[in-house]
Amino acid sequence: MANRNFSEMSREELAGVRCELEKLYGEFQARNLKLNMARGKPGAEQLDISDSILESANPKFAADGTDCRNYGCLEGLPEMRKFFGDVLGIAPENIIVGGNSSLNLMYDSIMRLMVFGTQNCTPWGKLPKVKFLCPAPGYDRHFAVTGEFGIEMITVPMTPTGPDMDMVEKLVSEDDAVKGIWCVPLYSNPEGICYSDETVTRLSSMKCAAPDFRIFWDNAYGVHHLYEPVVLKDIFAECEKYGNPDRVLYFFSTSKITYPGAGVAMMASSSANCAEVLKRMTIQTIGHDKLNQLRTLQFLKDAEGLKKQMERQAALLRPKFELVLNTLEKELCGTGLASWQKPKGGYFVALDTMDGCAGETIRLAKEAGVAMTGAGATFPYKNDPRDRNIRIAPTFPPIEELAVAMELFCVCVKLAAVRKLLAE
Amino acid sequence: MANRNFSEMSREELAGVRCELEKLYGEFQARNLKLNMARGKPGAEQLDISDSILESANPKFAADGTDCRNYGCLEGLPEMRKFFGDVLGIAPENIIVGGNSSLNLMYDSIMRLMVFGTQNCTPWGKLPKVKFLCPAPGYDRHFAVTGEFGIEMITVPMTPTGPDMDMVEKLVSEDDAVKGIWCVPLYSNPEGICYSDETVTRLSSMKCAAPDFRIFWDNAYGVHHLYEPVVLKDIFAECEKYGNPDRVLYFFSTSKITYPGAGVAMMASSSANCAEVLKRMTIQTIGHDKLNQLRTLQFLKDAEGLKKQMERQAALLRPKFELVLNTLEKELCGTGLASWQKPKGGYFVALDTMDGCAGETIRLAKEAGVAMTGAGATFPYKNDPRDRNIRIAPTFPPIEELAVAMELFCVCVKLAAVRKLLAE
Repeated sequence: MANRNFSEMSREELAGVRCELEKLYGEFQARNLKLNMARGKPGAEQLDISDSILESANPKFAADGTDCRNYGCLEGLPEMRKFFGDVLGIAPENIIVGGNSSLNLMYDSIMRLMVFGTQNCTPWGKLPKVKFLCPAPGYDRHFAVTGEFGIEMITVPMTPTGPDMDMVEKLVSEDDAVKGIWCVPLYSNPEGICYSDETVTRLSSMKCAAPDFRIFWDNAYGVHHLYEPVVLKDIFAECEKYGNPDRVLYFFSTSKITYPGAGVAMMASSSANCAEVLKRMTIQTIGHDKLNQLRTLQFLKDAEGLKKQMERQAALLRPKFELVLNTLEKELCGTGLASWQKPKGGYFVALDTMDGCAGETIRLAKEAGVAMTGAGATFPYKNDPRDRNIRIAPTFPPIEELAVAMELFCVCVKLAAVRKLLAE
Repeated sequence: MANRNFSEMSREELAGVRCELEKLYGEFQARNLKLNMARGKPGAEQLDISDSILESANPKFAADGTDCRNYGCLEGLPEMRKFFGDVLGIAPENIIVGGNSSLNLMYDSIMRLMVFGTQNCTPWGKLPKVKFLCPAPGYDRHFAVTGEFGIEMITVPMTPTGPDMDMVEKLVSEDDAVKGIWCVPLYSNPEGICYSDETVTRLSSMKCAAPDFRIFWDNAYGVHHLYEPVVLKDIFAECEKYGNPDRVLYFFSTSKITYPGAGVAMMASSSANCAEVLKRMTIQTIGHDKLNQLRTLQFLKDAEGLKKQMERQAALLRPKFELVLNTLEKELCGTGLASWQKPKGGYFVALDTMDGCAGETIRLAKEAGVAMTGAGATFPYKNDPRDRNIRIAPTFPPIEELAVAMELFCVCVKLAAVRKLLAE
């Protein structure tokens, strides 16, 4: 049975619906639920499929004989760089392997730009003002990093093909205080949007007032397909073509491929940028954990092995995403109360409620025992100007719990909306 | 047979000695040696004694049920904090567990003080001038960090009981630009000096002009005894007693206990400092590798297990240190050409040549195929004002190679000296 559009209901009808929803909501509350759809955390079954890492003997020596137990090899093992290169289509010599956290590599990259600057440009921290473009809805931890360093964040709306490029081009060309942009180009967090070829080309070719403008290309979900892979245009090749070889800092990790807490992170950039990063990084650490690089490689083997692992991951995640999307479809389609994208990969589904209803929806869910990502989290300064975006993270809870959480969630979306409609 | 003091030789005698030394040196050169006494890197046999870490199945869950494969637990596992606390006599709640590198924790601590400051004091990076006291000879990587951030480094001479405390007290009380001091309090790098109780008390109680003065207490060799343990006075208790609870940032790691490249690092400080660090660190990373914490603990077990491991390490290192000291004694004692301490632990022996001979000695060694730490490395700005200090790192080479390298080294010390004496 098709849902009715709430905007077509009379006040009496709305009051009746509210009554039903309050009753349903009360029933959920009585169940004392304790469910969590807050963080993009893999579920236990996604971790189990990598457990031969822990259960088998781990190697000590790299292919070139390097004793991985000892100090050294700051840039990462040759085989680890080759692996990442094969997976992502990047030259191994342009890859620097990190520790277990790509966020840490991003943070440190911003820190270096703030404190030391790049290529003889003034360190950002010595400028009166530094601005970053923040396509939103976006990843809360990105915004937390730029916020931490006092960088002014400018919200750029997302479109179904990536950030609003007209706005991006205008801002970067007019203002040399605009120094960077956060991008999650494939299956964006939280909407699951994939950047179109045109978006990649425009980002690579646009004229920037700041010579040290940098694209923070966080390809966190670069291999996290749920169906047929979406192919992302090669931004390094595009930047090269348009004479902007140093524009991109590329980040990736195996956190959501093997173990979230013990994966291997990497960054990639031009030779000039890599040389600069390594020169600074050698002051910061003697080297990252090479045994974990070997251990991870022993398990994943090569690009083909990674593909198979991601198919296993997708087999575990598809039912959860489909449950979320089917529940939204069944409960909210046609109501006029919400809209959402249908991601083909990544870790999230994002939903826009009616304006002014996101915070209230999340509050209702929380009071009935379902934790969601906080309201506004997907915007810079945690400020969602229309108070409408909610990030749903379906990966962590077992599917039975997810089913209950999603049912409750839809009740909350409707209840928040109907209360608002009746209060107007 | 006792060595003759070179200063008592006539020019003819010196010329004769030079002739013999040139011949000896030539013979070494003809051997095409390729030996390395440059870095404080454990030898392969020191790594082998930890290999059950790699060869046995590793645990997944912490004692409290935390799934260590997943994200989270930024401050480190409770059992890891308790372990470090037991080993070092520090309250576990004042310990933050890091990744594999304590140097990285030090670098990040300086970075936070530069960029963000502490306890409402002006960030160091916003001050016209920041100075650091650098007891020297000291650790080259410490000086590289402060140098990197543009901090002015003031050399403080080392004495057999630690830094020259009269000079330290004067400098910190008179100048509020003096913001910190580097300390390796036990078996210092490179001389193997242990700070006396009085030194610890004076560091804890001294009046500092800068309210945000910080002691970087890098207890890198805190359990690295070669003989009976030297006991270091508890600096946290002393600081507390004298009303300076936030003065110390304490660093340690298992790098030279288990694996240099894959150990577990930690920092410790007051509750106020720890809260501040964690608040910043949560923006930088979601958490460090907890599986490696479990893996390390499974092997070391507890403070008693660590003690046994360090006895195994000492059994491997003692012969090397004794070989170095015996060779120095045999070849150089009484010559008036060199002086040195006799470390009871740690990773190095430091030797002072005649003034103006360190660089030349190291050059001669290098040209005969023995790599040493670069001249000046043990001083800020790589500037050893008397060009006399040389760091000997005996741990990495196999003992037969070390024996050859030390023989050559002593020839080089003497040859550099006799050439200089004859040129005067």
